[in-house]
Amino acid sequence: MSPDVTRRALLRSIGVAGGAGVMFESMRALGLVASPEALATPAYQPPATGDLTVAKRGKKVVILGAGIAGLVTAYELGKAGYDCTILEANDRVGGRNWTVRGGTTMTDLDANTQTAKFAHGQYLNAGPARLPQSHITLDYCRELGVPVETFINQNANALLYNEQSGVAAQQYRTAKADFYGYISELLAKAVDHGSLDQSLSGEDKDRLLTFLSGFGAIGDRADGFAYTGTSRRGYSVEPGAAEQAGVVLGPPPSLSTVLASQVGRYFSFEFGYDQAMTMLQPVGGMDAIPMALYRAIGRHKVRLGAAVTKVTDLAHGVEVVYKDARGKEVLVRADFCVAALPPHVMARIPTNLDAGVTAALRYPTATPSGKIGLEYRRRWWEQDDRIYGGITETDLDLAHIWYPSYGFHGERGVVVGYYNTGANATAYGSLSHVERTKRAVAQGVKIHGKKYSDELVSSFSVAWQRVRHIEGAWVSWPSRTSGEYALLNKPAGRVYFAGDWLSYFIAWQAGAIDSARYVVTNIHQRVMAER
Amino acid sequence: MSPDVTRRALLRSIGVAGGAGVMFESMRALGLVASPEALATPAYQPPATGDLTVAKRGKKVVILGAGIAGLVTAYELGKAGYDCTILEANDRVGGRNWTVRGGTTMTDLDANTQTAKFAHGQYLNAGPARLPQSHITLDYCRELGVPVETFINQNANALLYNEQSGVAAQQYRTAKADFYGYISELLAKAVDHGSLDQSLSGEDKDRLLTFLSGFGAIGDRADGFAYTGTSRRGYSVEPGAAEQAGVVLGPPPSLSTVLASQVGRYFSFEFGYDQAMTMLQPVGGMDAIPMALYRAIGRHKVRLGAAVTKVTDLAHGVEVVYKDARGKEVLVRADFCVAALPPHVMARIPTNLDAGVTAALRYPTATPSGKIGLEYRRRWWEQDDRIYGGITETDLDLAHIWYPSYGFHGERGVVVGYYNTGANATAYGSLSHVERTKRAVAQGVKIHGKKYSDELVSSFSVAWQRVRHIEGAWVSWPSRTSGEYALLNKPAGRVYFAGDWLSYFIAWQAGAIDSARYVVTNIHQRVMAER
Repeated sequence: MSPDVTRRALLRSIGVAGGAGVMFESMRALGLVASPEALATPAYQPPATGDLTVAKRGKKVVILGAGIAGLVTAYELGKAGYDCTILEANDRVGGRNWTVRGGTTMTDLDANTQTAKFAHGQYLNAGPARLPQSHITLDYCRELGVPVETFINQNANALLYNEQSGVAAQQYRTAKADFYGYISELLAKAVDHGSLDQSLSGEDKDRLLTFLSGFGAIGDRADGFAYTGTSRRGYSVEPGAAEQAGVVLGPPPSLSTVLASQVGRYFSFEFGYDQAMTMLQPVGGMDAIPMALYRAIGRHKVRLGAAVTKVTDLAHGVEVVYKDARGKEVLVRADFCVAALPPHVMARIPTNLDAGVTAALRYPTATPSGKIGLEYRRRWWEQDDRIYGGITETDLDLAHIWYPSYGFHGERGVVVGYYNTGANATAYGSLSHVERTKRAVAQGVKIHGKKYSDELVSSFSVAWQRVRHIEGAWVSWPSRTSGEYALLNKPAGRVYFAGDWLSYFIAWQAGAIDSARYVVTNIHQRVMAER
Repeated sequence: MSPDVTRRALLRSIGVAGGAGVMFESMRALGLVASPEALATPAYQPPATGDLTVAKRGKKVVILGAGIAGLVTAYELGKAGYDCTILEANDRVGGRNWTVRGGTTMTDLDANTQTAKFAHGQYLNAGPARLPQSHITLDYCRELGVPVETFINQNANALLYNEQSGVAAQQYRTAKADFYGYISELLAKAVDHGSLDQSLSGEDKDRLLTFLSGFGAIGDRADGFAYTGTSRRGYSVEPGAAEQAGVVLGPPPSLSTVLASQVGRYFSFEFGYDQAMTMLQPVGGMDAIPMALYRAIGRHKVRLGAAVTKVTDLAHGVEVVYKDARGKEVLVRADFCVAALPPHVMARIPTNLDAGVTAALRYPTATPSGKIGLEYRRRWWEQDDRIYGGITETDLDLAHIWYPSYGFHGERGVVVGYYNTGANATAYGSLSHVERTKRAVAQGVKIHGKKYSDELVSSFSVAWQRVRHIEGAWVSWPSRTSGEYALLNKPAGRVYFAGDWLSYFIAWQAGAIDSARYVVTNIHQRVMAER
């Protein structure tokens, strides 16, 4: 046994015996706290293949919904010898993990139909579009052979634009240089004047001034620690050959102007645990994940176009009735049911479950959110603006503009023209697709100019609150401690619930996966405990 | 004519007439300063294909060196109808742009031979390894059809380790959270106490406090603006399903401990104009660029193993003598010569040039630098440490550890085990390859533990100062204004010099390219002016 394994085993046993607090203290003692290797997430123990005796092998589980939670449930239970059937109301697997390509058609709740006209190789990840390197989603990509590539979540050449501040769009790099420069100047002055002597020793002060000097690229004491600009802002004339030394973009605006731009609010996004680079994406579209699960489970295990109309929990099993694509009612009997649907959708299906369960399903609030893919005939963001992937942040109703992290230097490209939530998403969602496109393009022109309109060739939009059988981008819990959350994390008889909404990683596939694993573990323990 | 073209044309004419200063002011007036579109780098105007009359078509240019500068010179001149011959002393094109794969062999100046044993698909970019999105290098990738992908230059999960500070290795994300948290706390306190009232209006203060609150994730006034940690640091137990809310890694060390770690010095790397994300790399290895130029130029135009022994500048042409691979002396006559060699290498070739030219060639100082590729049987940095690409920074003699930005989830991977310069590079360079590997691995074990040694399968190292016909990673100019730099940017009779060392982008391929374009422009203007 290698020392690494010993250390992991030791930590696991401490975690099991003493809980997270004890484990953390042990990790501190071992000097491991800051080491990523020591991340002590309780390891998922999949049901061992040999666990199920002959008598128990082939226990039947009917799963409602072929989103990530449903697919992972079937995948993990299937590996252990369970016989799973997934009922999916839509005509595709993946749920919100949905990649739109040329030919993709969707009819929404308002009976509006769109068909994407994107060129070959172009796509829009209408739902999840990025994978943090810490998330277990990547473990499934590795296990299932889904190739991944970098998703560019931060780009110094992407822009920041607050229309309300009246300041022109500027690159992240410029705004950062100015904010970091000025706060370094201010703090250095305060430190040097002794204003913070209560908080800082002499040695602290020296070290802090050294840090600020590099962090802000500011002058020294003799210069009053002044921030006067730096090549970090960019160049108005780039350096080059011979005597072309380059001209630094500058001088920087005044401190007041920089603060008034209020674009500093966007900096902390990239510090977030789930948003800091490195981020990744499956090559060719996010739906490579559900497609790989679909293949691994066996396509015959999934019934598409199967809209569940009734769920009955019985003493020794469950009965689920669904309408197939031709409108015929079909009855499925199983030992267990896993409802891996959005809670507000599940709440509408007739069941014999306790009224408290149905009330709990109605408790979380569905969030509206929308995205539009704008296909351009030319990758002007790369060619003209030197923006390779990344996100432009705005205070416009489109919120974010995403530049594609794939297909660099290709002929065409799909820009995400808005990705918004709440009132903005509701407003866009209430428009026709043509009107959504017009509005999004008119806003984007403010940042990128006329080419943003002129070079557009096609578009496709989704308003998740208007997507059939899904009706929301994700949910939020008004409270997790008022009972509903705990209730739904327990089985209602033989009916289990799964989904990102039953995790602390809401709106992430990792949440759906971990919830599925949690249910798989619980079902398996129950089966193993049965006589 | 579109408004964009008009605006660009206007700016170009202002730039030509009034210089950079006037142009910049005009751009300010137009509100264009911060817009990337307005980057007013003087555009390269390639010689027009129709420029050369029948009499001038086929003017001969002999180019010394098939590095990027030599290749681009031949490519651009060739497109315009010049007849170019490249003489390259090594047995491959690319110069310092060199990708090492399984089977790559090198014998250095000390007659030590290494042969790489990397598995198929694994490689080490021994020289340049990253392309900033602003650099013209990418324009050549687009023009030549060299596919590019993201190079991960910043990774929140990569580590910071200062052995001298005695603090354990920690993730970038953790160190950033702590530094940004504490400086926000300190500055907020100083602002709130009125210590900076001379520099800040009341409105400025409010805006600054709002910024610091988000930037540092600090408490509010009632909490004394205290930084007490945040999930930006990471988790000791990740959030997950059901009741697994996650345990934030913490509490943070004291302000003094954070400052004493001195890892904040590494943060500003990513603010650099040339190092900020997005960075890119050619798919499959950096040498895709010279190989594409080689093909575009025509392989028959390049003579490999051709070591130049004499350059003679004559009234109406040049004569270059080289020794071919079999030791035979060959004479080449041409109208012009472009010496695209490192200056210290060119300085040793007998010529009839002015002694001042040779002295100038000896003036810049060659920088030693080395890299080692460590091939592992398992991508433990991804699987165990959740590090997908990026760079770990240290105060060890290895300086940086790079994790590969390609081949995610594959079986093997090549980590750059050191990339250093100066005394560290000289020290490693003076060792045998086996000793370099031992030393680099022993240092890396301090950060990554025993697996860093146990899982190693092969390695390959380069010390650029010991590479034949190159003898340095790049050069630096003790002064650019003492005459030598200007002298070498002019032709010596019919001999021109080109290379990144004649640009303000030293050690970047963009410098070599722009220098080549500069020489191409000057030769072409001279040819066009000739009667």
